[in-house]
Amino acid sequence: MPHFNPLIARLSPPPIPSVLAWAKAYDGTRGPLIDLSQAVPGYPPHPDMLKWLGEAASSTAYTGYGAIEGEAVLRSAYAEHVSKVYGAKISVENIHITSGCNQAFISAAMALAGSGDTVLMTNPFYFNQETTLSMLGIKVELVPCDPSSGFLPDIEAIAQTLRPGVRMLALVSPNNPTGAVYPPALLQKIFDLCRNNGTWLVLDETYRDFLAAGDAPHGLLSEDGWQDSLICLYSFSKSFCIPGHRLGAITASPAVVEQIAKVMDNLQICAPRSAQAALAKALPALDDWRAGNRAEIGRRADALRQVMARTPGWKLQAIGAYFAYIRHPYPDIGSDFVAEKLAKIAGIVCLPGDYFGEGQEGYLRFAFANADADTILKLEERLNGFSLPGI
Amino acid sequence: MPHFNPLIARLSPPPIPSVLAWAKAYDGTRGPLIDLSQAVPGYPPHPDMLKWLGEAASSTAYTGYGAIEGEAVLRSAYAEHVSKVYGAKISVENIHITSGCNQAFISAAMALAGSGDTVLMTNPFYFNQETTLSMLGIKVELVPCDPSSGFLPDIEAIAQTLRPGVRMLALVSPNNPTGAVYPPALLQKIFDLCRNNGTWLVLDETYRDFLAAGDAPHGLLSEDGWQDSLICLYSFSKSFCIPGHRLGAITASPAVVEQIAKVMDNLQICAPRSAQAALAKALPALDDWRAGNRAEIGRRADALRQVMARTPGWKLQAIGAYFAYIRHPYPDIGSDFVAEKLAKIAGIVCLPGDYFGEGQEGYLRFAFANADADTILKLEERLNGFSLPGI
Repeated sequence: MPHFNPLIARLSPPPIPSVLAWAKAYDGTRGPLIDLSQAVPGYPPHPDMLKWLGEAASSTAYTGYGAIEGEAVLRSAYAEHVSKVYGAKISVENIHITSGCNQAFISAAMALAGSGDTVLMTNPFYFNQETTLSMLGIKVELVPCDPSSGFLPDIEAIAQTLRPGVRMLALVSPNNPTGAVYPPALLQKIFDLCRNNGTWLVLDETYRDFLAAGDAPHGLLSEDGWQDSLICLYSFSKSFCIPGHRLGAITASPAVVEQIAKVMDNLQICAPRSAQAALAKALPALDDWRAGNRAEIGRRADALRQVMARTPGWKLQAIGAYFAYIRHPYPDIGSDFVAEKLAKIAGIVCLPGDYFGEGQEGYLRFAFANADADTILKLEERLNGFSLPGI
Repeated sequence: MPHFNPLIARLSPPPIPSVLAWAKAYDGTRGPLIDLSQAVPGYPPHPDMLKWLGEAASSTAYTGYGAIEGEAVLRSAYAEHVSKVYGAKISVENIHITSGCNQAFISAAMALAGSGDTVLMTNPFYFNQETTLSMLGIKVELVPCDPSSGFLPDIEAIAQTLRPGVRMLALVSPNNPTGAVYPPALLQKIFDLCRNNGTWLVLDETYRDFLAAGDAPHGLLSEDGWQDSLICLYSFSKSFCIPGHRLGAITASPAVVEQIAKVMDNLQICAPRSAQAALAKALPALDDWRAGNRAEIGRRADALRQVMARTPGWKLQAIGAYFAYIRHPYPDIGSDFVAEKLAKIAGIVCLPGDYFGEGQEGYLRFAFANADADTILKLEERLNGFSLPGI
């Protein structure tokens, strides 16, 4: 029997493929499958995005190796975008482009922590962040989020858990899986706690673009010395509907970018280049289109709220920019089993709370923004007509 | 002062950008720059390759998430290709697609070894493999290659260094940096040693396509039970001239592919999709074009041999499928200094032996296949006219 690294061997297989396998077993009797599993907006990219992707990919300008930190045009366009979103002064040296946000996370984590170090995460957590840390031999400690406050992290628990030597705190806002949007004042308090303890705050804002328009998500990028305590992560996948092109970004100090470039050089030299060039055009040009999508996803959230008010037993425990976190009606039955049956019997594909942390058996994650409002309204009949076989 | 992971902080900055900076300081007085640093064939991709890349990138078929292990069409096309090259039976379940060969290496290494484990490499080594292991806290032990045998690895040294618990041996053939092509019989002996010791052989064959046509590179993929001892790595970058699209591949047992998929899911979910679809077309279709390139690179090697026979003091210590390893005429001066001056004064950009291991100060790596034969012949005048300032 061949011997593998036990930190990898003990990991469960990636969860999304098993969930998609449940979906395949659905026989269609309740109508078309409603896939609320992996976060993928159910509309296509803008036609100009596709055109620019095609133009760049067929050009010899991007077939060679590129800069490790990313194409200058995209770093610059993204720095300008971040500056506008946060009302902060962010420049090209603050940006590192990666192949998606999972890669942004592992690059940042490796730059900050090694095997045996301790990192804090919330419970529930985004499962790939937890498996990333575990496979690197980094010790993970969890701070609870309070279901009764819509799953905001418990600031007292963070204060108690932080201690010298804790290398980083990983947060996701808007949150995956709960959808919770962390208020700026809460993020400020958490940032202050981290800074006072010499702990890096690594903030994944993949779902930022689906926040209701208006105020900045937080003011941390305008704090004096933020560079020594904060790293922000982002994904272009959701907002531009191009996860298959694998692009994400890191906003951090030039010193952090320098460390991350060393990691990235070993991970894959540089992110794929032609899609970077296309995105550099899209980032300023498709602002209105993205604002329209934001409004559309707001309508989808409203539709889900309506549904959940009419499905006794199913409780909308939290909802936010992309995800809803729903308590299912079977307190003694694991979310894994409920989600499997929901997929196979009712054609509703979602992720079990189980996948996202300890004590999450009572919950399901709905990536509601995948489906349009009409489709979401169909959940009412399917959920009300659903019962677990033999229960 | 912010605190970083010391395993990352202690790494030198990625070497290629510093070498390219030397090149920028060249004033052009000796004629156009001759860039023999990063391995990039100096001809463009085939026009059909560009067309297929553009078509796939502008299609909605590849904007969503894809299978972690890679697109089925590419896994299948590559399995067929490998079967043909090695005369072996390789199927789609044996293939995992990655974002380039550095990512193939780190995924395989993480699946096999963790912090504190021991891995063997040759000296000299491909620097990204060494930094990858170091940044993961994996202990590296070096087995020497003999300059007098054209830098083949010392089989006795491997036999002596292997012992229970050594997790893997990393080999590169055709070699980077020396160019050495390891004969099938030598690879067979090394494989047998590894298998008897329970050590994985991880064989990077990025430059395989530039071998003179004919026999298979080795027979290991036809050995009974190879799956429990061997992992082969490959890059599409060099052979198809598309490093900017970042694609590589792993050939291994389904059990290894399953472990690597867990790592890849955390590294970046999946390799970029549209270029995979384009490559699936190119792999069978561009066989003749690639054979032509192989012959062209053979002519370039001949040109370099001619040059090196006429440049007293400079010694061609090894030459192979893509690289040549050259002893410079300054025994008391480090290769870093010689390479810097060669770039700045003579407009010849190459990599210092220093970057590739211990005791390599006397050598330079020439990626001769980057330049056409006429350009290579110009090295004669430049090398003979070169002297270190103040020496």
